[in-house]
Amino acid sequence: MTGLGTQELNDYLAAVFPEAVGYRVEAAAEDELRVRLCVGARHLRPGGTVSGPAMFELADFAMYAAVLSRIGRVALAVTTSANIDFMRKPEAGRDLVASVRVLKLGRVLAVGDVMIRSDGSDAIVARASLTYSIPPSDRKNGGLA
Amino acid sequence: MTGLGTQELNDYLAAVFPEAVGYRVEAAAEDELRVRLCVGARHLRPGGTVSGPAMFELADFAMYAAVLSRIGRVALAVTTSANIDFMRKPEAGRDLVASVRVLKLGRVLAVGDVMIRSDGSDAIVARASLTYSIPPSDRKNGGLA
Amino acid sequence: MTGLGTQELNDYLAAVFPEAVGYRVEAAAEDELRVRLCVGARHLRPGGTVSGPAMFELADFAMYAAVLSRIGRVALAVTTSANIDFMRKPEAGRDLVASVRVLKLGRVLAVGDVMIRSDGSDAIVARASLTYSIPPSDRKNGGLA
Amino acid sequence: MTGLGTQELNDYLAAVFPEAVGYRVEAAAEDELRVRLCVGARHLRPGGTVSGPAMFELADFAMYAAVLSRIGRVALAVTTSANIDFMRKPEAGRDLVASVRVLKLGRVLAVGDVMIRSDGSDAIVARASLTYSIPPSDRKNGGLA
Repeated sequence: MTGLGTQELNDYLAAVFPEAVGYRVEAAAEDELRVRLCVGARHLRPGGTVSGPAMFELADFAMYAAVLSRIGRVALAVTTSANIDFMRKPEAGRDLVASVRVLKLGRVLAVGDVMIRSDGSDAIVARASLTYSIPPSDRKNGGLA
Repeated sequence: MTGLGTQELNDYLAAVFPEAVGYRVEAAAEDELRVRLCVGARHLRPGGTVSGPAMFELADFAMYAAVLSRIGRVALAVTTSANIDFMRKPEAGRDLVASVRVLKLGRVLAVGDVMIRSDGSDAIVARASLTYSIPPSDRKNGGLA
Repeated sequence: MTGLGTQELNDYLAAVFPEAVGYRVEAAAEDELRVRLCVGARHLRPGGTVSGPAMFELADFAMYAAVLSRIGRVALAVTTSANIDFMRKPEAGRDLVASVRVLKLGRVLAVGDVMIRSDGSDAIVARASLTYSIPPSDRKNGGLA
Repeated sequence: MTGLGTQELNDYLAAVFPEAVGYRVEAAAEDELRVRLCVGARHLRPGGTVSGPAMFELADFAMYAAVLSRIGRVALAVTTSANIDFMRKPEAGRDLVASVRVLKLGRVLAVGDVMIRSDGSDAIVARASLTYSIPPSDRKNGGLA
């Protein structure tokens, strides 16, 4: 098994994305991975709402973490497409929590769904689906189906 | 006519998005609007590539500018959905240029396409389609069909 | 409450979509609605796989049924956008089953997620997200948040 | 060059999609391919509008034709994802015309944009972006970058 646990994921992500401040993988299970975004000034629009691009970044980061958690360190995996629906205003002064489910982990493509909620709330603020491309050299290392 | 010209757009966007440093609307015509992103350190992934979230932000910003250019100052217009395909690595050390076409400007929803290229290149780095929701109070001011 | 139960849904859908042969709403609960597609020759590609457009039609039909189940007969609700990922080949000779979750039911837009599986299998064949626009005249009748 | 011209495309598509009645590739150039859908009863919703799934099928067919026109007979190319925005009601009693631009033709994935209009009208009825996966055995034959 070449996947990564929660601590390894956080260490690796901090190393490859030094600019990604405020993200923390909280749980990495086979069926779902959870990432918390500690919302800061740089994520806010005037008025105090988390911006759309900040939520996109959270979804993208969370899907990348989910791919790593399954196949290990594949620094070159890249997003090939993403679709995101913004449905509700996040609650003011709360962290955002993204839950990822990997729906497919193929030889070439990984597909996952991300639901973003305000911490402590059940209402879905945004949903995203993302496709990552996994480069051949990294695929050799992984346990991809 | 309640739309905005290039200078008015840049002034208004700087006022409502003080954090959006590095963007400049270069041309705002009926059929196409163009936004340049002066790529800086905060937009880069390790290795020097512009990050996916930075390109998403550029597409989102450009579509918002295109809506403003047509219907004037609608601070509350919000993105309801976005779809983005990342197709090529941007060229190192170049600005990115986004070209927007507004495909629909209805009473409730505006839909547009965005093509992102490296400055000076014809190859499309990313394409996005975005839907904005226009709040009723702002719609009264605009000339929406 | 103006929503519809399973039997009412099937009767209404057969009346407004007489051409939609082979679909049956099997369960309509608050949190999930399920539609079965009895796969026939017209849904197949050469080789026996269900075609992409047939799966799109199933997802679209299922989301429409889910909207009706919540707000009643709104014949004029229309799809405004859809995103679909095809992930696996459906199993030969099996029905397809679509499970819908309505993620947002607003005054103007309804957003939902659809997972399509081969009957009896857990593997997700396709996932879709769809947005429906609900016309104002119909909205007055419904219990929309 | 292994691509196909207009006549070859129509012959090949009729052979591999015998059920796809009513489609005709009208022009296949390097930068754009055009497909006409002769709208018939099976494409209509009650009221006479072309259904969303019929427009999805047209977009999917047109993108497949565009891939074939560039790399030849790759029967196993499959749609991996699609995004479609429905923007206007098609005009009654008119054919639909889809214009495809292939934005990327890579070793593994092809990405294209499709604009659908009512015949004789400039207004865009629907826009779609589609990604096709090209199987390795077929890729060897093609001139893919």
